[in-house]
Amino acid sequence: MSLTIGVDIGGTKIAAGVVTESGEVLHQRRTRSPATDPSQIVRTIAGLVADLVAQLPAGTEVEAVGASAAGFVDKSRAMLVFAPNLAWRDEPLKDHLERAVGLPVVVENDANAAAWGEFRFGAAEDVDSLLMLTIGTGVGGGIVLDGELVRGGFGMGAEVGHIPMVPGGVRCGCGNLGCLESYASGSALVRMTREAAVARPDAAALLLERAGGEAEKIGGQMITEAAQQGDPFAVERLAELGSWIGRGIASLTAVLDPEVVVVGGGVAEAGDLLLDPVRASFAEHVTARGYRPMLEVRGALLPDAGLVGVADLAHRR
Amino acid sequence: MSLTIGVDIGGTKIAAGVVTESGEVLHQRRTRSPATDPSQIVRTIAGLVADLVAQLPAGTEVEAVGASAAGFVDKSRAMLVFAPNLAWRDEPLKDHLERAVGLPVVVENDANAAAWGEFRFGAAEDVDSLLMLTIGTGVGGGIVLDGELVRGGFGMGAEVGHIPMVPGGVRCGCGNLGCLESYASGSALVRMTREAAVARPDAAALLLERAGGEAEKIGGQMITEAAQQGDPFAVERLAELGSWIGRGIASLTAVLDPEVVVVGGGVAEAGDLLLDPVRASFAEHVTARGYRPMLEVRGALLPDAGLVGVADLAHRR
Amino acid sequence: MSLTIGVDIGGTKIAAGVVTESGEVLHQRRTRSPATDPSQIVRTIAGLVADLVAQLPAGTEVEAVGASAAGFVDKSRAMLVFAPNLAWRDEPLKDHLERAVGLPVVVENDANAAAWGEFRFGAAEDVDSLLMLTIGTGVGGGIVLDGELVRGGFGMGAEVGHIPMVPGGVRCGCGNLGCLESYASGSALVRMTREAAVARPDAAALLLERAGGEAEKIGGQMITEAAQQGDPFAVERLAELGSWIGRGIASLTAVLDPEVVVVGGGVAEAGDLLLDPVRASFAEHVTARGYRPMLEVRGALLPDAGLVGVADLAHRR
Amino acid sequence: MSLTIGVDIGGTKIAAGVVTESGEVLHQRRTRSPATDPSQIVRTIAGLVADLVAQLPAGTEVEAVGASAAGFVDKSRAMLVFAPNLAWRDEPLKDHLERAVGLPVVVENDANAAAWGEFRFGAAEDVDSLLMLTIGTGVGGGIVLDGELVRGGFGMGAEVGHIPMVPGGVRCGCGNLGCLESYASGSALVRMTREAAVARPDAAALLLERAGGEAEKIGGQMITEAAQQGDPFAVERLAELGSWIGRGIASLTAVLDPEVVVVGGGVAEAGDLLLDPVRASFAEHVTARGYRPMLEVRGALLPDAGLVGVADLAHRR
Repeated sequence: MSLTIGVDIGGTKIAAGVVTESGEVLHQRRTRSPATDPSQIVRTIAGLVADLVAQLPAGTEVEAVGASAAGFVDKSRAMLVFAPNLAWRDEPLKDHLERAVGLPVVVENDANAAAWGEFRFGAAEDVDSLLMLTIGTGVGGGIVLDGELVRGGFGMGAEVGHIPMVPGGVRCGCGNLGCLESYASGSALVRMTREAAVARPDAAALLLERAGGEAEKIGGQMITEAAQQGDPFAVERLAELGSWIGRGIASLTAVLDPEVVVVGGGVAEAGDLLLDPVRASFAEHVTARGYRPMLEVRGALLPDAGLVGVADLAHRR
Repeated sequence: MSLTIGVDIGGTKIAAGVVTESGEVLHQRRTRSPATDPSQIVRTIAGLVADLVAQLPAGTEVEAVGASAAGFVDKSRAMLVFAPNLAWRDEPLKDHLERAVGLPVVVENDANAAAWGEFRFGAAEDVDSLLMLTIGTGVGGGIVLDGELVRGGFGMGAEVGHIPMVPGGVRCGCGNLGCLESYASGSALVRMTREAAVARPDAAALLLERAGGEAEKIGGQMITEAAQQGDPFAVERLAELGSWIGRGIASLTAVLDPEVVVVGGGVAEAGDLLLDPVRASFAEHVTARGYRPMLEVRGALLPDAGLVGVADLAHRR
Repeated sequence: MSLTIGVDIGGTKIAAGVVTESGEVLHQRRTRSPATDPSQIVRTIAGLVADLVAQLPAGTEVEAVGASAAGFVDKSRAMLVFAPNLAWRDEPLKDHLERAVGLPVVVENDANAAAWGEFRFGAAEDVDSLLMLTIGTGVGGGIVLDGELVRGGFGMGAEVGHIPMVPGGVRCGCGNLGCLESYASGSALVRMTREAAVARPDAAALLLERAGGEAEKIGGQMITEAAQQGDPFAVERLAELGSWIGRGIASLTAVLDPEVVVVGGGVAEAGDLLLDPVRASFAEHVTARGYRPMLEVRGALLPDAGLVGVADLAHRR
Repeated sequence: MSLTIGVDIGGTKIAAGVVTESGEVLHQRRTRSPATDPSQIVRTIAGLVADLVAQLPAGTEVEAVGASAAGFVDKSRAMLVFAPNLAWRDEPLKDHLERAVGLPVVVENDANAAAWGEFRFGAAEDVDSLLMLTIGTGVGGGIVLDGELVRGGFGMGAEVGHIPMVPGGVRCGCGNLGCLESYASGSALVRMTREAAVARPDAAALLLERAGGEAEKIGGQMITEAAQQGDPFAVERLAELGSWIGRGIASLTAVLDPEVVVVGGGVAEAGDLLLDPVRASFAEHVTARGYRPMLEVRGALLPDAGLVGVADLAHRR
């Protein structure tokens, strides 16, 4: 039995797990992330890995470690070129981790890793090509075509949150105007909902009540819950978000033509309340409708897609 | 010496040439396209192929034939799913051609073939990944990543002319609103120029003179020539077009992250009058500027990129 | 009792009525419009006027005639500068009509006349300033500020259907891109609904059934009726239209700051199915919400607002 | 000779002047604005008025005072409903000032006052209707139709900076998305120029040199000066700004149909470097071009249009 360890390095926590070749997570550990201190992160990961290895029966070996983080990873999958949440710039993470854990290491962008996880063991395991959108604070993307992860010429592809959707549009955190992320992320959902609640307090009464009367306290979870309980205002907000996600998928489909689109991330827990508007908007905006085999839009399946995905990439290093 | 024949099937003419492994065109033939009659097209191609083979020294063999056409080609590269200019729908072109010419046949989309040609022997032969835009009546696209042509999950990817750029925008020939093609094609250049000439006849005086005083007679070639002679109005029109092309490339770069973008097609003959505005607009709209290695935007180099490209794909079938 | 006659000159019919100073229509006549023949239109109107006068008790006099038509009316209210449906260009309608009917004549744009009618005797009779939108094939507008009809410096103001809402947007019948009319008219409703029905036939099942299975046969009346019966797809289409109307009103309110907005025209018969989304969208898009007294959006009240309005303008000539 | 005093209350200074019926400024005073203290502002104005009156020959009387400020003024022209720079909310300014100066007082919005000044004594004194745009930090507007200032149903009209130009556009200071002000103001010019300079430092070399090498130090005055010296990058930036102003005027013209548009404010000092692009863009975007008498776009003429305008409104109170 061949085992690898997947590590998911986040801004607030680090998760690590031993993963089999069939994507099963045998043991898992989770600890707080010392986000602003790169060398401390390396030590923390080394500790988690040692800990996990110690759990294994004598004689079981771990082959390699895969580590994923939000940020740009270079083409050779060795360096974190830029990771805003982790204060990393041109960090030779592979090298540092290999020294610290004494095993081969593969580094990957977290959304790529999640896409790979869903492709190998999750919602897209029946197809050869997929696009995955992770709808969280931002909009992350991962692409698999013909069974290979698409990483781009410099390793910085699949940044689907930053395709421009609106000329002269809302300013994005990346500095540009009108990026998909500004309309299709969880943050956008919250922003649009708060604004609509201020403009139409009567319609938003239920949500405002949940938020103690203050629009500024409305959060993503509240919106999903209110929608699940049938609140028309909240349902409409998820539909608005879904409409933008569907437009984004239509744009990406013209270029990538995936067989399946997987939508994941926190907001995707709203299920068909989000996905049905995504599908409707996609159908209305995709080019050559009627002349092309139609892809399927599916919800993500794996709770730890990133960790499992990057562990599998370590298998295949 | 291994030889293949490349065939470029257009709506008005069909060109065929014998191509070496190094991309050299040894002999070439060109004839009118019997566009509306699929079986007549097959016979015409068979005639061109026989004719070319007859030119070769005795004992020289042709290995295979590559045929490119504007339209959707299926994943197995056997069928033209939809080719509006050629009245083809679900046409088993590979099968028909193989019977007619007695050689293995590869079918490819024409913009894909052109991208492959520039990648192997032209403007992008020094890199592993490129995006090519062909600016003609429409906007065609071809993508090479890690040395492989990107064809999409169903074979219908790289339709970059149909990424939506403007929500609620101008209606595209594909039926959708706001596609890149509606702003960044040669047709869009002509349309926008005619409209601006009607609105501002004084500014457009030179162009109107060339067009015999009628805005409706302004054509693409006229605009390029006037710009090359320094007419500020024409220069501005190419800059407007270039600005949209640059936005389009910025969108595609977020997803594909190519090392080089090649701009080809008739309008690209304007050279830096078009490409400099493309570069400026790209620089202003690309995400993570300053954090990513910057791609180069180059003009296309090959006069017969499609024919050479599809011949090379036949080599590698 | 002072009486005038109002005449509403349409592309398919001409209506005329005797109107009292309090806006009551005493007698009314209606006939087919000889649309393409200006002098025949004048004769037809003269006939209708004579007919109506003959109905009145002996000794009752008609003071003046008001005539309204779709088109640009010049500042002096004498000339139809351009009326596309009536084949009129620089037509001295006032002069021709005065000779034909032997009474003073006032000419007015039809949407202005309707706004004046609603202001004097209809949905806005309690206020001093209003904006009226007439949602029909196009989007007509009429403005009253401080009790006066706003006609613009050359008489061509209040063309609210042609404020640009989307840079690079859908082409309008006027030749420009992105006019309000392209998103907020009855024609736009039908176009958007047909497109959505093609893209999502399951969702549109009820409407498609009404249209005999052909999206191209879906009409405005069908949409309203389906929405009134609770069909979610049709309700959504009216909401989409209402959202654009609300944005348009938000734009106009920044400039005109009316006390009341009256929405009329065929589509407005959908009532609150249309007006509630208009109100919601207006609230979300108007500037300085919370710092300004909020206007009311009301449905039109008068069945013959244009005829009554232009008759009243004749009273006040 | 009838005299009034005009007072222009700004966030940083207060100016006051004695103005004749023909718009001549006889004496003028200027002092720092105690912006955050409403009652102190009233005392400051009373001081300036007393000072100016003391300058006049014995026996000369001042009839009334007009005071203008940036903010919403109510319909009765007595109250400053909201003036963000002056920390006023529902301030009964007319009443407070009348008590303090012992003269009748008229209150007006500053952009309205400037439009009135240009209408009576400046760039539009030959016409009956005009639209004025004041391009400064924001975009102010004033409208005169048929010789009357258009104030709106609640007194809050002519806020032309807040017509929505881009659905889903850049966030405006007013909270909404895509307002004209976000694209057509002096602040927008500076923002867009800084961004373009970061993206294309070579093209912006001259401007960057003026700004000591830091894009963040580029200011509006620098851009105008560089453009006046022929720097193509700076010329292009003013053209970009002008293009948006022209679109805005096209929108407003569909509604208001003015005979003349006056463009004033700091940025307008660039003259035809700004105004020619405004005219070109207006011509390209106005509806019914060719069917309507064309308005003229003119630069503002008066150095103290607001002060003179509000003094004249006091004459006509």
